[in-house]
Amino acid sequence: MGVSAKEFAAMEARLSGRATKSSGGSASQPEPGLRLPEGSRVLGIDPSLRGTGWGVIRIGPREPSFVEAGTIRCPKSWERSRCLGEISRALSEVLQRHPPALCVCEGLFFAQNLQTALIMGEARGAAMAAVARTGVEIHEISPRKVKLAMVGYGAAQKIAVAKMVQRQLRLSDTPDPDAADALALALVMAQELRNPLGPASKRV
Amino acid sequence: MGVSAKEFAAMEARLSGRATKSSGGSASQPEPGLRLPEGSRVLGIDPSLRGTGWGVIRIGPREPSFVEAGTIRCPKSWERSRCLGEISRALSEVLQRHPPALCVCEGLFFAQNLQTALIMGEARGAAMAAVARTGVEIHEISPRKVKLAMVGYGAAQKIAVAKMVQRQLRLSDTPDPDAADALALALVMAQELRNPLGPASKRV
Repeated sequence: MGVSAKEFAAMEARLSGRATKSSGGSASQPEPGLRLPEGSRVLGIDPSLRGTGWGVIRIGPREPSFVEAGTIRCPKSWERSRCLGEISRALSEVLQRHPPALCVCEGLFFAQNLQTALIMGEARGAAMAAVARTGVEIHEISPRKVKLAMVGYGAAQKIAVAKMVQRQLRLSDTPDPDAADALALALVMAQELRNPLGPASKRV
Repeated sequence: MGVSAKEFAAMEARLSGRATKSSGGSASQPEPGLRLPEGSRVLGIDPSLRGTGWGVIRIGPREPSFVEAGTIRCPKSWERSRCLGEISRALSEVLQRHPPALCVCEGLFFAQNLQTALIMGEARGAAMAAVARTGVEIHEISPRKVKLAMVGYGAAQKIAVAKMVQRQLRLSDTPDPDAADALALALVMAQELRNPLGPASKRV
């Protein structure tokens, strides 16, 4: 799966600082009014039963920097409850290794049916509970807003988001798609902290 | 809210050992083939964002006995994530105080809409992850099957279930409705362990 011409144009425009029609008004320059102290970490989580992406970035003097990211994989052969336990356990380890000042989760989406929504909700609940137990505040940003802020195009493909994450965090490789989504959430949250008029997150 | 004549008749029939048309074939007499050793605890959980019921019973030589039960209440003023953290924290305490051999959760139900299913799923995920992290197996029984097995009537009211829980566990008071639902889950699971032809639980 490649990046479409439309997505590429939007990415280029964002990188060069030109606004596009659908860029959602989020600034790419750091602005005064940063609410988290420099050095604070932001944890992004993209919860899913079989592959929960997570990513930690550190707020820098100008651009945020990469700390660590990964995907919590749970094989199809595992019972649902075992996956939920693993999501909670693995995230608790991340929270201990890199205590974040703030957490941001992928926001509500439109599930295909009730069964999907319930299972999706379970993965989110396991992840959010692990974070909330440490007392860290959780915000939510919708996938569409993340794509809009990262790629300048609300229906961008996953690979386009991953490539922007790679560039913004100066990574040598494109991160795994789920980890990239989590890092994108953290980056958009950091962007919003610099520019309160940017894409809106919602505290949950 | 009282107990309807139909529910009362079904309860009376169950208590006297007579089968009713809708009793679902679950035996009320203990049978050989108990798979959990005597003294094992079963934890029932009825997860919900604002009021998660939980109840612990102990497998006895004949009837199970009451250990402890309660409701994890989260005020409306709390953010969703704070509730999820509290569900996880409070259940971890219960798991430490009364390590169970088995856990049983209220099974899938039909939510009114996707938003409800997602929020319900989050509460379930927080609860199930706390249990799964301790390595305890989780089973699911649908609310309808619990009512059928407890009251002999699949659409029984909550109060009818609570009154049967009170009688079966020889409690001096009718338990809080959410705690009663959790105890009912544990009792039906214990019933099933004695009689594998009884109401079916599903491992999750």
